[in-house]
Amino acid sequence: MVMHDHIVRSFTEELEALTAAVSRMGGLAEEAVANALATISRRDTALAQQVIERDALLDEAQREIERKITRILALRQPMARDLRQTIAALKLAADIERIGDLAKNIAKRSLNMDAVLPASVVRGIERMGKLAVAQLKQVLDAFGTGAPGGAVSVWLQDEELDEHYNSLFRELLTYMMEDPRKIGPTTHLLFIAKNLERIGDHCTNMAEVVHYMETGEEIAGVRPKADSLGQPAPASDSDGDI
Amino acid sequence: MVMHDHIVRSFTEELEALTAAVSRMGGLAEEAVANALATISRRDTALAQQVIERDALLDEAQREIERKITRILALRQPMARDLRQTIAALKLAADIERIGDLAKNIAKRSLNMDAVLPASVVRGIERMGKLAVAQLKQVLDAFGTGAPGGAVSVWLQDEELDEHYNSLFRELLTYMMEDPRKIGPTTHLLFIAKNLERIGDHCTNMAEVVHYMETGEEIAGVRPKADSLGQPAPASDSDGDI
Repeated sequence: MVMHDHIVRSFTEELEALTAAVSRMGGLAEEAVANALATISRRDTALAQQVIERDALLDEAQREIERKITRILALRQPMARDLRQTIAALKLAADIERIGDLAKNIAKRSLNMDAVLPASVVRGIERMGKLAVAQLKQVLDAFGTGAPGGAVSVWLQDEELDEHYNSLFRELLTYMMEDPRKIGPTTHLLFIAKNLERIGDHCTNMAEVVHYMETGEEIAGVRPKADSLGQPAPASDSDGDI
Repeated sequence: MVMHDHIVRSFTEELEALTAAVSRMGGLAEEAVANALATISRRDTALAQQVIERDALLDEAQREIERKITRILALRQPMARDLRQTIAALKLAADIERIGDLAKNIAKRSLNMDAVLPASVVRGIERMGKLAVAQLKQVLDAFGTGAPGGAVSVWLQDEELDEHYNSLFRELLTYMMEDPRKIGPTTHLLFIAKNLERIGDHCTNMAEVVHYMETGEEIAGVRPKADSLGQPAPASDSDGDI
């Protein structure tokens, strides 16, 4: 089947199939993040379980993409942009797989938060989540359509997500200090917020990969950084997924 | 210079240079994690600053490794194990770069912890850190010497680090509940512990990559998982760096 696949297909078709597989995998991750967020406000246990179980689909998608890439590298000897596209697919699949893990972790945490959460905090998480999902969608579109402009726009947006993270973080700390009995569940929210901030960092990495794939150039300049670290504990680090 | 480099070198020499570059980069990350840990107990501001500044060396090392890989894929068309080794170098460099970011984040947080920390907590962090550094060293040795056995051993050790993380996590929560004024600095420690647990997860990923590179087979079975999630907030997820 795989051999047949390879024999009848042109190189262009193989590259298109690779791009399509990465886009499909990205769509699964987008759905996972959106559903994981829904579990927090709705306390939807069944949906949380579904997010956790469906993470296996992302892992399998990554393995399939890596098999396609190995076949292309071994049999097609891609050059120039074709080679950049093949390597980009490998890197994007790794970022998407981690985004799926982060969504799974959010779902796990939502299953373990029995306390009633303040509406402002839930709203803050939802805002961050919407931004993260939008960034993921946008960078996947930039990859699918080969538009470096879309990648640059995602790359520039990360500051906004970091700012939301930093302010939400401080709100959560205050909340813990006011009611120490809520420290356990609030800690789940701290890590959920961190996971969303890291999803944004992965989207930024993906934007850099897509831009390089399209242009052969790295995105110039240093990405804006909101995190000051003057206050306790964000220590977000956009030059890597922390 | 690069062209000359390529012209005079044999393929074997290029692969050896690639492996050496990954090992060197790994050594930088090992040093960064060890130094970041030292900054916590010693409150060594200068050392923390050095860890933060030297992270740029890891980023540059990764770029250089990716340049080597692109050249090898474009000019040498590696097959079978050579191809697995080339792709492995790309993946390992990505894991090592993130380990460097996590060490940098630990150093940043240590700069922002003014409170006096309970000795038991500092010891717990140090124990986790020693385990993480040992795992990194071991998986780098397995890669350098091409010993899949060493990779399997690292892969099996992650459970121990997760157990340390879970118990330290609960200790930190208790500490916050007992003294809410310490919530800020203790949150830094929560994230430092999480960073160390994630460094262990990266070492596990690297072990899987090294094993596949050497054997062409994935490490069989499911890696042991200590995290139960019955208690607040660890939600560690070793099938991905969370």
